[in-house]
Amino acid sequence: MERSVIIVAGGSGKRMGSTLPKQFLLLKGRPLLFWTIRAFHRFDPAMQLIVVLPKEQMEAWEARCAAHDFQVPHTVVAGGPERFHSVKEGLREVHHNGLVAVHDGVRPLVPEELIANCLRAAERHGAAIPVVPMSSSVRAVEGASSHAVDRTALRVVQTPQCFQVPILRTAFELPYDPAFTDEATLVERTGAVVHLVEGAGQNIKVTTPVDLEIAEVLLRGVPL
Amino acid sequence: MERSVIIVAGGSGKRMGSTLPKQFLLLKGRPLLFWTIRAFHRFDPAMQLIVVLPKEQMEAWEARCAAHDFQVPHTVVAGGPERFHSVKEGLREVHHNGLVAVHDGVRPLVPEELIANCLRAAERHGAAIPVVPMSSSVRAVEGASSHAVDRTALRVVQTPQCFQVPILRTAFELPYDPAFTDEATLVERTGAVVHLVEGAGQNIKVTTPVDLEIAEVLLRGVPL
Repeated sequence: MERSVIIVAGGSGKRMGSTLPKQFLLLKGRPLLFWTIRAFHRFDPAMQLIVVLPKEQMEAWEARCAAHDFQVPHTVVAGGPERFHSVKEGLREVHHNGLVAVHDGVRPLVPEELIANCLRAAERHGAAIPVVPMSSSVRAVEGASSHAVDRTALRVVQTPQCFQVPILRTAFELPYDPAFTDEATLVERTGAVVHLVEGAGQNIKVTTPVDLEIAEVLLRGVPL
Repeated sequence: MERSVIIVAGGSGKRMGSTLPKQFLLLKGRPLLFWTIRAFHRFDPAMQLIVVLPKEQMEAWEARCAAHDFQVPHTVVAGGPERFHSVKEGLREVHHNGLVAVHDGVRPLVPEELIANCLRAAERHGAAIPVVPMSSSVRAVEGASSHAVDRTALRVVQTPQCFQVPILRTAFELPYDPAFTDEATLVERTGAVVHLVEGAGQNIKVTTPVDLEIAEVLLRGVPL
Protein backbone atom coordinates (compact mmCIF):
# COMPACT_ATOMS: atom_id res chain seq x y z
CA MET A 1 0.00 0.00 0.00
CA GLU A 2 1.39 3.44 -0.92
CA ARG A 3 2.28 5.73 1.97
CA SER A 4 2.93 9.44 2.32
CA VAL A 5 3.74 11.72 5.19
CA ILE A 6 2.85 15.41 5.35
CA ILE A 7 5.33 17.13 7.66
CA VAL A 8 3.92 20.46 8.79
CA ALA A 9 6.48 23.09 9.70
CA GLY A 10 4.57 26.30 10.13
CA GLY A 11 6.33 27.79 13.14
CA SER A 12 7.64 31.32 13.17
CA GLY A 13 9.98 30.99 16.16
CA LYS A 14 8.09 33.33 18.48
CA ARG A 15 7.90 30.92 21.42
CA MET A 16 11.60 30.15 21.05
CA GLY A 17 12.39 33.83 21.65
CA SER A 18 14.19 33.56 18.33
CA THR A 19 13.80 35.24 14.97
CA LEU A 20 14.78 31.98 13.32
CA PRO A 21 11.80 29.70 12.64
CA LYS A 22 11.81 26.68 15.00
CA GLN A 23 12.22 24.20 12.17
CA PHE A 24 15.51 25.89 11.16
CA LEU A 25 17.08 25.89 14.62
CA LEU A 26 20.19 23.77 14.80
CA LEU A 27 19.97 20.40 16.48
CA LYS A 28 23.35 18.68 16.59
CA GLY A 29 24.51 21.15 13.95
CA ARG A 30 21.66 20.49 11.50
CA PRO A 31 18.26 22.18 11.06
CA LEU A 32 15.69 20.51 13.31
CA LEU A 33 13.48 19.71 10.33
CA PHE A 34 16.24 17.55 8.79
CA TRP A 35 15.90 15.17 11.72
CA THR A 36 12.14 14.93 11.35
CA ILE A 37 12.33 14.21 7.63
CA ARG A 38 15.12 11.74 8.23
CA ALA A 39 13.02 9.78 10.77
CA PHE A 40 10.39 8.97 8.14
CA HIS A 41 12.96 8.30 5.46
CA ARG A 42 14.74 5.80 7.71
CA PHE A 43 11.43 4.17 8.54
CA ASP A 44 10.63 3.65 4.86
CA PRO A 45 12.85 5.05 2.09
CA ALA A 46 9.96 4.50 -0.37
CA MET A 47 7.55 6.72 1.55
CA GLN A 48 6.55 9.99 -0.12
CA LEU A 49 7.82 12.91 2.00
CA ILE A 50 5.88 16.16 1.73
CA VAL A 51 7.14 19.13 3.73
CA VAL A 52 4.84 22.12 4.18
CA LEU A 53 6.63 25.39 4.93
CA PRO A 54 5.49 29.02 5.06
CA LYS A 55 5.97 30.40 1.57
CA GLU A 56 8.50 33.00 2.72
CA GLN A 57 10.73 30.29 4.19
CA MET A 58 10.96 28.09 1.11
CA GLU A 59 13.98 29.78 -0.39
CA ALA A 60 15.88 29.73 2.89
CA TRP A 61 15.04 26.05 3.25
CA GLU A 62 16.44 25.19 -0.15
CA ALA A 63 19.61 27.11 0.68
CA ARG A 64 20.02 25.11 3.90
CA CYS A 65 19.47 21.81 2.17
CA ALA A 66 22.22 22.75 -0.29
CA ALA A 67 24.57 24.11 2.38
CA HIS A 68 24.23 20.98 4.54
CA ASP A 69 24.18 18.65 1.55
CA PHE A 70 20.87 17.17 2.74
CA GLN A 71 20.15 14.36 0.31
CA VAL A 72 16.78 12.97 1.42
CA PRO A 73 14.35 13.59 -1.47
CA HIS A 74 11.23 15.50 -0.39
CA THR A 75 8.58 17.74 -1.92
CA VAL A 76 8.29 21.24 -0.48
CA VAL A 77 4.85 22.85 -0.53
CA ALA A 78 3.85 26.39 0.51
CA GLY A 79 1.52 26.37 3.52
CA GLY A 80 -1.49 28.50 4.37
CA PRO A 81 -2.48 30.80 7.23
CA GLU A 82 -3.34 27.97 9.68
CA ARG A 83 -2.35 24.34 10.11
CA PHE A 84 -5.64 23.32 8.49
CA HIS A 85 -4.74 25.11 5.26
CA SER A 86 -1.16 23.86 5.33
CA VAL A 87 -2.13 20.21 5.66
CA LYS A 88 -4.74 20.71 2.93
CA GLU A 89 -2.02 22.02 0.62
CA GLY A 90 0.17 19.05 1.47
CA LEU A 91 -2.66 16.63 0.81
CA ARG A 92 -2.93 17.91 -2.79
CA GLU A 93 0.45 16.26 -3.40
CA VAL A 94 -0.86 12.83 -2.38
CA HIS A 95 -1.95 11.07 -5.57
CA HIS A 96 -2.87 7.63 -4.25
CA ASN A 97 -5.55 6.11 -2.03
CA GLY A 98 -3.23 4.39 0.40
CA LEU A 99 -2.16 5.78 3.79
CA VAL A 100 -1.13 9.27 4.84
CA ALA A 101 0.53 10.40 8.05
CA VAL A 102 0.42 14.02 9.23
CA HIS A 103 3.36 14.89 11.47
CA ASP A 104 4.57 17.95 13.36
CA GLY A 105 7.81 19.27 11.86
CA VAL A 106 9.07 19.94 15.38
CA ARG A 107 8.78 16.32 16.56
CA PRO A 108 12.19 15.09 15.34
CA LEU A 109 12.38 12.21 17.83
CA VAL A 110 9.47 10.11 16.61
CA PRO A 111 10.45 6.43 16.95
CA GLU A 112 10.19 4.21 13.87
CA GLU A 113 8.13 1.72 15.84
CA LEU A 114 5.54 4.40 16.58
CA ILE A 115 5.24 5.32 12.90
CA ALA A 116 4.78 1.63 12.09
CA ASN A 117 2.13 1.10 14.77
CA CYS A 118 0.12 4.15 13.74
CA LEU A 119 0.14 3.32 10.04
CA ARG A 120 -0.82 -0.27 10.77
CA ALA A 121 -3.73 0.87 12.95
CA ALA A 122 -4.88 3.36 10.30
CA GLU A 123 -4.80 0.63 7.68
CA ARG A 124 -7.07 -1.46 9.87
CA HIS A 125 -9.31 1.20 11.45
CA GLY A 126 -9.23 4.13 9.01
CA ALA A 127 -7.80 6.71 11.41
CA ALA A 128 -5.25 6.29 14.20
CA ILE A 129 -3.31 8.68 16.41
CA PRO A 130 -0.70 8.20 19.16
CA VAL A 131 -1.57 9.29 22.69
CA VAL A 132 0.19 9.14 26.05
CA PRO A 133 -1.33 9.29 29.54
CA MET A 134 -1.65 12.68 31.21
CA SER A 135 1.08 12.48 33.85
CA SER A 136 0.36 15.83 35.52
CA SER A 137 -2.50 17.17 37.58
CA VAL A 138 -4.73 19.35 35.40
CA ARG A 139 -6.99 22.30 36.13
CA ALA A 140 -9.60 24.02 34.02
CA VAL A 141 -9.70 27.81 34.13
CA GLU A 142 -13.01 29.65 33.95
CA GLY A 143 -12.66 33.40 34.12
CA ALA A 144 -10.92 34.23 37.42
CA SER A 145 -11.51 30.80 38.97
CA SER A 146 -10.30 27.30 38.22
CA HIS A 147 -11.13 23.75 39.23
CA ALA A 148 -9.38 20.39 39.27
CA VAL A 149 -10.02 18.05 36.34
CA ASP A 150 -9.91 14.25 36.63
CA ARG A 151 -6.84 13.39 34.59
CA THR A 152 -7.34 9.62 34.48
CA ALA A 153 -9.57 9.90 31.41
CA LEU A 154 -7.32 12.41 29.62
CA ARG A 155 -4.69 11.61 27.01
CA VAL A 156 -2.03 13.84 25.48
CA VAL A 157 -2.17 13.70 21.68
CA GLN A 158 0.99 13.30 19.59
CA THR A 159 1.70 12.84 15.90
CA PRO A 160 1.98 11.16 13.38
CA GLN A 161 -1.80 11.13 12.94
CA CYS A 162 -2.44 8.46 10.32
CA PHE A 163 -5.35 7.98 7.95
CA GLN A 164 -6.56 6.10 4.94
CA VAL A 165 -6.17 8.80 2.29
CA PRO A 166 -9.86 8.93 1.21
CA ILE A 167 -10.91 9.54 4.84
CA LEU A 168 -8.57 12.50 5.21
CA ARG A 169 -9.58 13.89 1.82
CA THR A 170 -13.25 13.81 2.81
CA ALA A 171 -12.43 15.57 6.07
CA PHE A 172 -10.54 18.36 4.29
CA GLU A 173 -13.62 19.16 2.25
CA LEU A 174 -15.07 20.64 5.45
CA PRO A 175 -14.85 24.42 5.82
CA TYR A 176 -12.11 25.74 8.14
CA ASP A 177 -13.02 25.93 11.83
CA PRO A 178 -10.58 27.20 14.52
CA ALA A 179 -11.67 24.22 16.70
CA PHE A 180 -9.65 21.90 14.42
CA THR A 181 -6.45 21.78 16.44
CA ASP A 182 -5.46 18.49 14.86
CA GLU A 183 -6.47 16.25 11.97
CA ALA A 184 -8.19 13.72 14.26
CA THR A 185 -10.69 16.38 15.36
CA LEU A 186 -11.41 17.19 11.74
CA VAL A 187 -11.82 13.56 10.69
CA GLU A 188 -14.23 12.93 13.56
CA ARG A 189 -16.42 15.74 12.30
CA THR A 190 -17.12 13.56 9.26
CA GLY A 191 -18.30 10.73 11.50
CA ALA A 192 -15.11 8.63 11.30
CA VAL A 193 -13.86 6.99 14.49
CA VAL A 194 -10.29 7.73 15.55
CA HIS A 195 -8.37 4.77 16.94
CA LEU A 196 -5.85 5.46 19.73
CA VAL A 197 -2.35 3.98 19.64
CA GLU A 198 0.20 4.09 22.47
CA GLY A 199 2.51 7.06 21.90
CA ALA A 200 6.11 7.49 23.08
CA GLY A 201 7.54 9.66 25.83
CA GLN A 202 10.51 10.67 23.72
CA ASN A 203 8.28 11.91 20.87
CA ILE A 204 8.40 15.46 22.21
CA LYS A 205 7.39 18.64 20.44
CA VAL A 206 10.35 21.01 20.38
CA THR A 207 8.83 24.40 21.12
CA THR A 208 11.09 26.02 23.72
CA PRO A 209 14.87 26.43 24.13
CA VAL A 210 14.73 23.83 26.93
CA ASP A 211 13.10 21.34 24.53
CA LEU A 212 15.92 21.92 22.07
CA GLU A 213 18.49 20.98 24.71
CA ILE A 214 16.44 17.92 25.58
CA ALA A 215 16.28 16.88 21.94
CA GLU A 216 20.08 17.16 21.72
CA VAL A 217 20.40 14.65 24.54
CA LEU A 218 17.86 12.26 23.10
CA LEU A 219 19.60 12.33 19.72
CA ARG A 220 22.95 11.51 21.24
CA GLY A 221 24.49 8.70 19.26
CA VAL A 222 21.98 9.02 16.41
CA PRO A 223 23.67 9.81 13.06
CA LEU A 224 21.79 12.10 10.62
CA MET B 1 6.92 35.08 58.36
CA GLU B 2 8.10 31.54 59.07
CA ARG B 3 8.26 29.18 56.11
CA SER B 4 8.46 25.42 55.69
CA VAL B 5 8.53 23.08 52.75
CA ILE B 6 7.27 19.50 52.78
CA ILE B 7 9.13 17.57 50.10
CA VAL B 8 7.22 14.40 49.27
CA ALA B 9 9.32 11.53 47.96
CA GLY B 10 7.05 8.53 47.90
CA GLY B 11 8.11 6.89 44.66
CA SER B 12 9.04 3.24 44.47
CA GLY B 13 10.84 3.37 41.12
CA LYS B 14 8.34 1.24 39.18
CA ARG B 15 7.91 3.68 36.28
CA MET B 16 11.66 4.06 35.99
CA GLY B 17 11.98 0.34 35.31
CA SER B 18 14.34 0.40 38.27
CA THR B 19 14.37 -1.25 41.67
CA LEU B 20 15.94 1.88 43.09
CA PRO B 21 13.35 4.45 44.23
CA LYS B 22 13.26 7.46 41.85
CA GLN B 23 14.41 9.87 44.54
CA PHE B 24 17.63 7.86 45.01
CA LEU B 25 18.57 7.70 41.32
CA LEU B 26 21.80 9.51 40.58
CA LEU B 27 21.62 12.89 38.94
CA LYS B 28 25.07 14.28 38.22
CA GLY B 29 26.43 11.70 40.64
CA ARG B 30 24.13 12.62 43.55
CA PRO B 31 20.72 11.27 44.58
CA LEU B 32 17.96 13.20 42.79
CA LEU B 33 16.42 14.21 46.09
CA PHE B 34 19.60 16.07 47.10
CA TRP B 35 18.98 18.49 44.25
CA THR B 36 15.38 19.10 45.27
CA ILE B 37 16.29 19.77 48.90
CA ARG B 38 19.15 21.95 47.79
CA ALA B 39 16.86 24.13 45.62
CA PHE B 40 14.81 25.18 48.65
CA HIS B 41 17.87 25.58 50.86
CA ARG B 42 19.47 27.91 48.30
CA PHE B 43 16.24 29.86 48.02
CA ASP B 44 16.13 30.42 51.78
CA PRO B 45 18.66 28.81 54.16
CA ALA B 46 16.31 29.62 57.06
CA MET B 47 13.40 27.67 55.61
CA GLN B 48 12.37 24.50 57.48
CA LEU B 49 12.97 21.48 55.21
CA ILE B 50 10.78 18.44 55.83
CA VAL B 51 11.39 15.37 53.68
CA VAL B 52 8.76 12.63 53.67
CA LEU B 53 10.06 9.19 52.67
CA PRO B 54 8.57 5.69 52.77
CA LYS B 55 9.49 4.25 56.16
CA GLU B 56 11.52 1.42 54.61
CA GLN B 57 13.73 3.92 52.74
CA MET B 58 14.70 6.06 55.73
CA GLU B 59 17.75 4.08 56.71
CA ALA B 60 19.06 3.95 53.13
CA TRP B 61 18.53 7.69 52.88
CA GLU B 62 20.58 8.41 55.99
CA ALA B 63 23.35 6.18 54.65
CA ARG B 64 23.38 8.13 51.38
CA CYS B 65 23.48 11.48 53.15
CA ALA B 66 26.51 10.26 55.09
CA ALA B 67 28.21 8.69 52.08
CA HIS B 68 27.82 11.84 49.97
CA ASP B 69 28.51 14.17 52.90
CA PHE B 70 25.20 15.96 52.27
CA GLN B 71 25.20 18.83 54.75
CA VAL B 72 21.84 20.54 54.23
CA PRO B 73 19.90 20.15 57.50
CA HIS B 74 16.47 18.57 57.00
CA THR B 75 13.90 16.58 58.98
CA VAL B 76 13.02 13.14 57.64
CA VAL B 77 9.49 11.88 58.30
CA ALA B 78 7.98 8.46 57.50
CA GLY B 79 5.19 8.72 54.93
CA GLY B 80 1.88 6.91 54.64
CA PRO B 81 0.19 4.74 52.01
CA GLU B 82 -0.80 7.66 49.72
CA ARG B 83 0.46 11.16 49.07
CA PHE B 84 -2.38 12.49 51.23
CA HIS B 85 -1.13 10.63 54.27
CA SER B 86 2.49 11.48 53.59
CA VAL B 87 1.85 15.23 53.38
CA LYS B 88 -0.28 14.98 56.51
CA GLU B 89 2.65 13.39 58.34
CA GLY B 90 4.96 16.12 57.09
CA LEU B 91 2.53 18.81 58.20
CA ARG B 92 2.75 17.55 61.80
CA GLU B 93 6.33 18.85 61.82
CA VAL B 94 5.22 22.40 61.01
CA HIS B 95 4.87 24.24 64.32
CA HIS B 96 4.08 27.79 63.13
CA ASN B 97 1.23 29.57 61.39
CA GLY B 98 3.26 31.05 58.57
CA LEU B 99 3.59 29.58 55.08
CA VAL B 100 4.07 26.02 53.91
CA ALA B 101 5.03 24.74 50.47
CA VAL B 102 4.35 21.15 49.36
CA HIS B 103 6.76 20.02 46.67
CA ASP B 104 7.32 16.85 44.62
CA GLY B 105 10.63 15.22 45.57
CA VAL B 106 11.19 14.43 41.89
CA ARG B 107 11.05 18.08 40.73
CA PRO B 108 14.71 18.95 41.34
CA LEU B 109 14.77 21.81 38.83
CA VAL B 110 12.33 24.19 40.51
CA PRO B 111 13.61 27.74 39.95
CA GLU B 112 14.10 29.97 43.00
CA GLU B 113 11.99 32.67 41.38
CA LEU B 114 9.06 30.26 41.13
CA ILE B 115 9.32 29.35 44.82
CA ALA B 116 9.36 33.06 45.66
CA ASN B 117 6.36 33.87 43.46
CA CYS B 118 4.27 31.04 44.86
CA LEU B 119 5.00 31.82 48.48
CA ARG B 120 4.29 35.51 47.90
CA ALA B 121 0.96 34.68 46.26
CA ALA B 122 0.04 32.31 49.11
CA GLU B 123 0.84 35.00 51.64
CA ARG B 124 -1.56 37.32 49.84
CA HIS B 125 -4.28 34.90 48.70
CA GLY B 126 -4.07 31.97 51.13
CA ALA B 127 -3.34 29.26 48.55
CA ALA B 128 -1.28 29.46 45.37
CA ILE B 129 -0.01 26.88 42.87
CA PRO B 130 2.12 27.11 39.72
CA VAL B 131 0.54 26.15 36.41
CA VAL B 132 1.69 26.14 32.79
CA PRO B 133 -0.42 26.18 29.61
CA MET B 134 -1.39 22.85 28.05
CA SER B 135 0.82 22.80 24.97
CA SER B 136 -0.53 19.55 23.49
CA SER B 137 -3.83 18.52 21.99
CA VAL B 138 -5.85 16.58 24.54
CA ARG B 139 -8.50 13.87 24.23
CA ALA B 140 -10.86 12.41 26.79
CA VAL B 141 -11.37 8.65 26.73
CA GLU B 142 -14.77 7.16 27.50
CA GLY B 143 -14.83 3.39 27.28
CA ALA B 144 -13.78 2.44 23.76
CA SER B 145 -14.29 5.92 22.29
CA SER B 146 -12.62 9.27 22.80
CA HIS B 147 -13.24 12.89 21.93
CA ALA B 148 -11.20 16.04 21.54
CA VAL B 149 -11.05 18.42 24.52
CA ASP B 150 -10.60 22.18 24.19
CA ARG B 151 -7.13 22.70 25.65
CA THR B 152 -7.20 26.49 25.81
CA ALA B 153 -8.90 26.42 29.22
CA LEU B 154 -6.63 23.68 30.61
CA ARG B 155 -3.52 24.19 32.71
CA VAL B 156 -0.88 21.68 33.79
CA VAL B 157 -0.31 21.82 37.54
CA GLN B 158 3.19 21.88 39.06
CA THR B 159 4.56 22.23 42.56
CA PRO B 160 5.44 23.87 44.98
CA GLN B 161 1.83 24.26 46.06
CA CYS B 162 1.92 26.98 48.70
CA PHE B 163 -0.48 27.73 51.55
CA GLN B 164 -0.96 29.71 54.70
CA VAL B 165 -0.40 26.97 57.27
CA PRO B 166 -3.83 27.20 58.96
CA ILE B 167 -5.54 26.73 55.58
CA LEU B 168 -3.62 23.55 54.84
CA ARG B 169 -4.17 22.24 58.38
CA THR B 170 -7.92 22.70 58.04
CA ALA B 171 -7.85 20.88 54.70
CA PHE B 172 -5.98 17.91 56.16
CA GLU B 173 -8.72 17.40 58.72
CA LEU B 174 -10.83 16.08 55.81
CA PRO B 175 -11.05 12.30 55.45
CA TYR B 176 -8.91 10.75 52.71
CA ASP B 177 -10.46 10.66 49.24
CA PRO B 178 -8.67 9.18 46.16
CA ALA B 179 -9.82 12.25 44.21
CA PHE B 180 -7.21 14.36 46.07
CA THR B 181 -4.42 14.17 43.50
CA ASP B 182 -2.83 17.32 44.87
CA GLU B 183 -3.09 19.64 47.85
CA ALA B 184 -4.93 22.33 45.88
CA THR B 185 -7.84 19.96 45.25
CA LEU B 186 -7.99 19.20 48.95
CA VAL B 187 -7.87 22.84 50.03
CA GLU B 188 -10.65 23.74 47.61
CA ARG B 189 -12.84 21.14 49.25
CA THR B 190 -12.80 23.37 52.34
CA GLY B 191 -14.06 26.32 50.32
CA ALA B 192 -10.70 28.09 49.94
CA VAL B 193 -9.84 29.63 46.57
CA VAL B 194 -6.60 28.53 44.91
CA HIS B 195 -4.66 31.29 43.19
CA LEU B 196 -2.75 30.37 40.02
CA VAL B 197 0.85 31.49 39.48
CA GLU B 198 2.84 31.15 36.26
CA GLY B 199 4.89 27.94 36.44
CA ALA B 200 8.17 27.17 34.67
CA GLY B 201 8.87 24.87 31.74
CA GLN B 202 12.06 23.57 33.31
CA ASN B 203 10.25 22.54 36.52
CA ILE B 204 9.78 19.00 35.22
CA LYS B 205 8.78 15.93 37.18
CA VAL B 206 11.46 13.26 36.75
CA THR B 207 9.48 10.05 36.32
CA THR B 208 11.09 8.22 33.38
CA PRO B 209 14.69 7.45 32.33
CA VAL B 210 14.32 10.07 29.56
CA ASP B 211 13.40 12.69 32.19
CA LEU B 212 16.54 11.82 34.13
CA GLU B 213 18.68 12.51 31.06
CA ILE B 214 16.82 15.76 30.53
CA ALA B 215 17.41 16.79 34.13
CA GLU B 216 21.14 16.14 33.70
CA VAL B 217 21.19 18.61 30.83
CA LEU B 218 19.21 21.23 32.68
CA LEU B 219 21.49 20.98 35.70
CA ARG B 220 24.60 21.48 33.60
CA GLY B 221 26.72 24.13 35.26
CA VAL B 222 24.73 24.02 38.51
CA PRO B 223 26.88 23.06 41.52
CA LEU B 224 25.27 20.96 44.26
